[in-house]
Amino acid sequence: MKRVLVIHGVNINMTGRREPGVYGKETLEEINAQIARAAEQMGLGCDIMQTNYEGQVCDWLQSAPKKYDGIVLNAGAHTHYSYAIRDAIASVNIPCVEVHFSNIHARDEFRSKSVLAPVCAGQISGFGKYSYVLALQGLKEIMV
Amino acid sequence: MKRVLVIHGVNINMTGRREPGVYGKETLEEINAQIARAAEQMGLGCDIMQTNYEGQVCDWLQSAPKKYDGIVLNAGAHTHYSYAIRDAIASVNIPCVEVHFSNIHARDEFRSKSVLAPVCAGQISGFGKYSYVLALQGLKEIMV
Amino acid sequence: MKRVLVIHGVNINMTGRREPGVYGKETLEEINAQIARAAEQMGLGCDIMQTNYEGQVCDWLQSAPKKYDGIVLNAGAHTHYSYAIRDAIASVNIPCVEVHFSNIHARDEFRSKSVLAPVCAGQISGFGKYSYVLALQGLKEIMV
Amino acid sequence: MKRVLVIHGVNINMTGRREPGVYGKETLEEINAQIARAAEQMGLGCDIMQTNYEGQVCDWLQSAPKKYDGIVLNAGAHTHYSYAIRDAIASVNIPCVEVHFSNIHARDEFRSKSVLAPVCAGQISGFGKYSYVLALQGLKEIMV
Amino acid sequence: MKRVLVIHGVNINMTGRREPGVYGKETLEEINAQIARAAEQMGLGCDIMQTNYEGQVCDWLQSAPKKYDGIVLNAGAHTHYSYAIRDAIASVNIPCVEVHFSNIHARDEFRSKSVLAPVCAGQISGFGKYSYVLALQGLKEIMV
Amino acid sequence: MKRVLVIHGVNINMTGRREPGVYGKETLEEINAQIARAAEQMGLGCDIMQTNYEGQVCDWLQSAPKKYDGIVLNAGAHTHYSYAIRDAIASVNIPCVEVHFSNIHARDEFRSKSVLAPVCAGQISGFGKYSYVLALQGLKEIMV
Amino acid sequence: MKRVLVIHGVNINMTGRREPGVYGKETLEEINAQIARAAEQMGLGCDIMQTNYEGQVCDWLQSAPKKYDGIVLNAGAHTHYSYAIRDAIASVNIPCVEVHFSNIHARDEFRSKSVLAPVCAGQISGFGKYSYVLALQGLKEIMV
Amino acid sequence: MKRVLVIHGVNINMTGRREPGVYGKETLEEINAQIARAAEQMGLGCDIMQTNYEGQVCDWLQSAPKKYDGIVLNAGAHTHYSYAIRDAIASVNIPCVEVHFSNIHARDEFRSKSVLAPVCAGQISGFGKYSYVLALQGLKEIMV
Amino acid sequence: MKRVLVIHGVNINMTGRREPGVYGKETLEEINAQIARAAEQMGLGCDIMQTNYEGQVCDWLQSAPKKYDGIVLNAGAHTHYSYAIRDAIASVNIPCVEVHFSNIHARDEFRSKSVLAPVCAGQISGFGKYSYVLALQGLKEIMV
Amino acid sequence: MKRVLVIHGVNINMTGRREPGVYGKETLEEINAQIARAAEQMGLGCDIMQTNYEGQVCDWLQSAPKKYDGIVLNAGAHTHYSYAIRDAIASVNIPCVEVHFSNIHARDEFRSKSVLAPVCAGQISGFGKYSYVLALQGLKEIMV
Amino acid sequence: MKRVLVIHGVNINMTGRREPGVYGKETLEEINAQIARAAEQMGLGCDIMQTNYEGQVCDWLQSAPKKYDGIVLNAGAHTHYSYAIRDAIASVNIPCVEVHFSNIHARDEFRSKSVLAPVCAGQISGFGKYSYVLALQGLKEIMV
Amino acid sequence: MKRVLVIHGVNINMTGRREPGVYGKETLEEINAQIARAAEQMGLGCDIMQTNYEGQVCDWLQSAPKKYDGIVLNAGAHTHYSYAIRDAIASVNIPCVEVHFSNIHARDEFRSKSVLAPVCAGQISGFGKYSYVLALQGLKEIMV
Repeated sequence: MKRVLVIHGVNINMTGRREPGVYGKETLEEINAQIARAAEQMGLGCDIMQTNYEGQVCDWLQSAPKKYDGIVLNAGAHTHYSYAIRDAIASVNIPCVEVHFSNIHARDEFRSKSVLAPVCAGQISGFGKYSYVLALQGLKEIMV
Repeated sequence: MKRVLVIHGVNINMTGRREPGVYGKETLEEINAQIARAAEQMGLGCDIMQTNYEGQVCDWLQSAPKKYDGIVLNAGAHTHYSYAIRDAIASVNIPCVEVHFSNIHARDEFRSKSVLAPVCAGQISGFGKYSYVLALQGLKEIMV
Repeated sequence: MKRVLVIHGVNINMTGRREPGVYGKETLEEINAQIARAAEQMGLGCDIMQTNYEGQVCDWLQSAPKKYDGIVLNAGAHTHYSYAIRDAIASVNIPCVEVHFSNIHARDEFRSKSVLAPVCAGQISGFGKYSYVLALQGLKEIMV
Repeated sequence: MKRVLVIHGVNINMTGRREPGVYGKETLEEINAQIARAAEQMGLGCDIMQTNYEGQVCDWLQSAPKKYDGIVLNAGAHTHYSYAIRDAIASVNIPCVEVHFSNIHARDEFRSKSVLAPVCAGQISGFGKYSYVLALQGLKEIMV
Repeated sequence: MKRVLVIHGVNINMTGRREPGVYGKETLEEINAQIARAAEQMGLGCDIMQTNYEGQVCDWLQSAPKKYDGIVLNAGAHTHYSYAIRDAIASVNIPCVEVHFSNIHARDEFRSKSVLAPVCAGQISGFGKYSYVLALQGLKEIMV
Repeated sequence: MKRVLVIHGVNINMTGRREPGVYGKETLEEINAQIARAAEQMGLGCDIMQTNYEGQVCDWLQSAPKKYDGIVLNAGAHTHYSYAIRDAIASVNIPCVEVHFSNIHARDEFRSKSVLAPVCAGQISGFGKYSYVLALQGLKEIMV
Repeated sequence: MKRVLVIHGVNINMTGRREPGVYGKETLEEINAQIARAAEQMGLGCDIMQTNYEGQVCDWLQSAPKKYDGIVLNAGAHTHYSYAIRDAIASVNIPCVEVHFSNIHARDEFRSKSVLAPVCAGQISGFGKYSYVLALQGLKEIMV
Repeated sequence: MKRVLVIHGVNINMTGRREPGVYGKETLEEINAQIARAAEQMGLGCDIMQTNYEGQVCDWLQSAPKKYDGIVLNAGAHTHYSYAIRDAIASVNIPCVEVHFSNIHARDEFRSKSVLAPVCAGQISGFGKYSYVLALQGLKEIMV
Repeated sequence: MKRVLVIHGVNINMTGRREPGVYGKETLEEINAQIARAAEQMGLGCDIMQTNYEGQVCDWLQSAPKKYDGIVLNAGAHTHYSYAIRDAIASVNIPCVEVHFSNIHARDEFRSKSVLAPVCAGQISGFGKYSYVLALQGLKEIMV
Repeated sequence: MKRVLVIHGVNINMTGRREPGVYGKETLEEINAQIARAAEQMGLGCDIMQTNYEGQVCDWLQSAPKKYDGIVLNAGAHTHYSYAIRDAIASVNIPCVEVHFSNIHARDEFRSKSVLAPVCAGQISGFGKYSYVLALQGLKEIMV
Repeated sequence: MKRVLVIHGVNINMTGRREPGVYGKETLEEINAQIARAAEQMGLGCDIMQTNYEGQVCDWLQSAPKKYDGIVLNAGAHTHYSYAIRDAIASVNIPCVEVHFSNIHARDEFRSKSVLAPVCAGQISGFGKYSYVLALQGLKEIMV
Repeated sequence: MKRVLVIHGVNINMTGRREPGVYGKETLEEINAQIARAAEQMGLGCDIMQTNYEGQVCDWLQSAPKKYDGIVLNAGAHTHYSYAIRDAIASVNIPCVEVHFSNIHARDEFRSKSVLAPVCAGQISGFGKYSYVLALQGLKEIMV
């Protein structure tokens, strides 16, 4: 069984409490349950973590290959400036799929650029919590 | 049954013949067959079209709502400068999902910007032909 | 009697169906009837055409001098990037007036620049369908 | 009867004396007479003023709603940098139409941007003195 | 015998009628005859086509390898923004030489950049109709 | 007793009449009364002036040191381009505090830059009319 | 009694030891005592915290609404690039006032832009430690 | 006898009181006396004026040709953004020489660009009050 | 004996595992041993630390002067955007030398700019692990 | 007989030794022999020179009209920044054709701009040594 | 007697032969004679030199202080990019005045920026050959 | 024994005479003696040259491989714009280390960019004359 690490980065824990028009009304706990269930249905093992610390994201990414075959990452606002997370992704040899609740290309100017994208396998944005489900499915297709 | 229109834009017909390292070796006909099969399995009706003409893409988009509930669009290089296609998408009231074979954010500078994205429901890039399958699935989730 | 060619470019045929807050609720057919009537009242001959194809706009512009003394052009989104249409305007020796339903300078950043303007006789924007009537009147003043 | 205030801004009083190739040979006095006559023919009341002071333009704009139903403004070079005039326009609740003798989009780079445009109802440029007449007519159409 | 396809893009058919100071006074028909004669003298087969449609240029480029060993392309104003044509050139495995009547680097700012150049074998500009003759000769040298 | 000069620049006299959502509903006269009362309570002398003329602002700033120990300045839109006012501030040897009703950093792009800030002692924005009261208090702390 | 959380971000703990010409000679402990005393005099409850970790700032901001009615934030250098902190501020429904010891608009180019400002209620800079006192006072005015 | 108008623009009246390191310690009155004396020695008539109002500078420039054969202009900070003054210079048919006390190209970035320069006959900067004397001499050489 | 603190920042612990073509094949532990040995041979005390947390780097930098006479810092990707680390370096009064394994000026565009450089004593890049040895030697020369 | 001066600029003498993939394996001496032979066959006199000094290139260009009817110039890297060579070309009244071995528009960003192009008659790039032969031929066509 | 070195840089020797509309019809020899005569009348010693080599300009500047009290420099096109000449000027402790025949601020965009200006005492441009005379006079005023 | 060529570029001969605060008080001769001694101690042969001519630097670089195994280059101001020197470095197959007395990243904006860096093995800046000693040592490590 392939195993996937899902990382929610900074402020993603505010989902359901923050701008519900953009991010929906469900809490992260409710969403995580649905992600876990979808993974199970796809026959994927799946751990889900959240942190507000860029350094923690890097730690998790660096050690991911020991236990996982792929990564789903929503780095929150770090998407737009954290070259540190970018280098951490580049330093591991398993595929990482970048996800976003909202269509980041349709909001503030600064959100339309992802510094992580050039080292990710793919990017999925705009499908709300369902972006994660699509990412699991896409990852399943490309994990070796 | 929901119906989806899949539009391949300029040069997508060269798939399989053009830079196989980036776009894969299968021809568009082979890929279309797989997209159609996936749509069928999801219980979606699906028509697939290709053109090299920006004007034709606009014509198809404008008349899509008469027959379809959603659109999957790979506008090829027009993605990066065709505000005409952007306005055509904005003028219809059914969701449009933008797809790309490759991760457009990881290639030439000019490919990292999509002028269509701000009016699309979501964007999926980097999963090769499987980007279309994920788009169908995502569209299924958001079509009303 | 002076004759004028009115060209509606890409997506203008969606008028009445697209963003009524910006473009009004009347269809292009209804608007065309009013433009024709206004031309008649001014003693101007007037043909009106619409296309979504940049190449078609160029064809029409190139052959316009054979039948017309002036051009009224709403090039839609092509206004902002079609140097091809710009060169077509520059290649004919009758005046061309650029019109826009909305005040293009008051919307998205990319809409505030017209690449056609430097080769047009004048520009009128922001008066809705009435922009065309003013353009006919302005053209009447400058046609020789 | 609707009343309109026509404001000529900085250096417009040099018309007829300054670059006749661009602005024509008639003096502002002669042009004003024609504007007044055109207004009269349209059944509009019309006062015409000129000043070289940005502050004076703001004063006039601020008090315009007390006596007028619409404004025609040629702000001269202030068009390109006076955010003060822009805010003055935005602070009044009657429509303001921006006019220019020449096609400002076809001259020096710095003249192609109007900082006033985003708060004006419409813009007319390139028809020489006749730009004012068209502006009166456009204003007549949109004044409530 | 090697065969070459010469493609004249948008507005090139106006040659002789448009800005004779820049493009010369001969019509495209007269120039084509001279290009054909020069090709013949070099022992090259040569077909010459013209269109104002970007999509048509892409169609021709895509199918060129079936009949031709090399391409001479003057894409007109599309040179400066058509990434669609660029991708079409990149998708074929025969050399394409970019030509221009005038020295595009010595005119408007926007004309100094060719988005096609990075995928063309070479570029020749500034020799009027003779640019095509030099392109044929250069192509002859590099066609395999 | 320390004396302070409060200068309201261009369009500030429209407060209460202009965009009440941004600037509040009280007129400048009402606000001035409150500023004067607050100054009195802090034991500060205080004169308040308003003008739409950049030149007048400079005149007042230049002569301020003769009668005042500090300046509170809301330069309105001049904040964003008047290097003339900037130099006038720099030419006097008493502290000047820049104030704004709204948070200028949270509005139009052009409003986020103050060309005056580099020569002001401090900046206070976003507290509506209360920005002036805080400025008086801050000024009291730094006036020598 | 309203309660306020004062957050000192990265390097603010070096105050008194770092560039005394810019930040003054008092240590953060001494300054904190004065802030606390000022809060007390205003009848406000007040907790003061400091951290060098961006993630910690986000944690504190996210949980602030449970105990506090408003926030005073000096994010240090994070002011200029931490979209993560920006999103954390945007995710809470109590007002946050941005403060700076020095006038950030009068120093290095990169310091003149605050990425936090667009989501803060107001900004106060340039009054040294007294900026905090003014922020408390401003916050008192706007807390509901 | 040729006559010259010397215009000191905004804040120049602060000379001697403002940043003596940059502008010297003499007052404008003392400097004017020396300029007048130098003009007299060169056999030139010379009037000297100062204003802080951009509009006044334009008024003076517009009417200068009636009494003067040339203009010496130090527009102060208006040098860097007043396209209004630029147009006023362009509208008169006598030569205008731009002068600056300091070498404007060696100070703040924004001071290195003069929007007036393109319409002035020449520019002299960096010689303190002596810049005016050199300007008179240069003007004498080019006045016809 | 002078003491030096060597700080490896984010992702440097991946050395030997990450892009060996760029960073070499030795692990950080092996490299640290060699750095330590080189320091010893130079008669320098030396502690070596690594962290992925920007906040931790700041903490270490702030407290360095208590135990060390100089700092060698490889901040990894934080080099390119962490103004927080920059301020931390600026806040301590011992010299800091910036080092990089690779020549950062010869890679991705974003890596060619170091926001730390302006506050570091010197920069050494491109010598692989030997960059650290050179940095120790350079530091030895400049520590007082 | 027309005479042509061929100037190889900086580093062109390294041809055959420098990046053979880009510039080919033949030495400059071998290439010069072929250029000379081609010139002879075209009935052109031809001298060929090389220097690494920008000043020398200018000297040669300035004196070229005394002996030559046209110039072929490969200015090497000076192409991209030497406004001095540009002015030297502009100062002579015989045509100068710019050549490049490689397609300069398809390499590093900085190589895509030629500051010489605006004053050259034409540009030929991408045909290796054969670029010179085409340049001679083009020059033959345009020399008067 | 004070001594001045006048340096004419690259292409200045073409004066009289190059673009007479811009630079006049007199040769450099004739102009030099007039400069020498003017220097003599001012009681200044004066040597005049010309070179096309940037390195030679640097050599002359470096050794100037041994024999001269001031420098007049027209660096030609090097004005716009030669940081080498800039550093040479900065390395000598005698004043250097920058001169230009034409008003460099009124021509091509690239000519409006002087990289030398920040280290020169002053700049004089637009007075043709007379710019040198004014420079001598200005230099006389500031040489110590 | 490995041999190294040390090249001092433009204005480096002014060391000791030019801005001693930045470059130190020792003359280049004194520094060269110390570099030579250091090389000797490392067992390296070493020649040292200086020139103000860009062309001369290129000549030396091109011929360096005949006698030397590595190059130490301080190109002075040419560092920031000489693509000619860059190409010369790229054309030789021995390593070149770029050195600077001062930390170029901590001075004027234009000095923070080295156009040479992308083709150099490494860069050392900020250690005064000792930068050269470190460069020799680094070069020793990487020369093969």
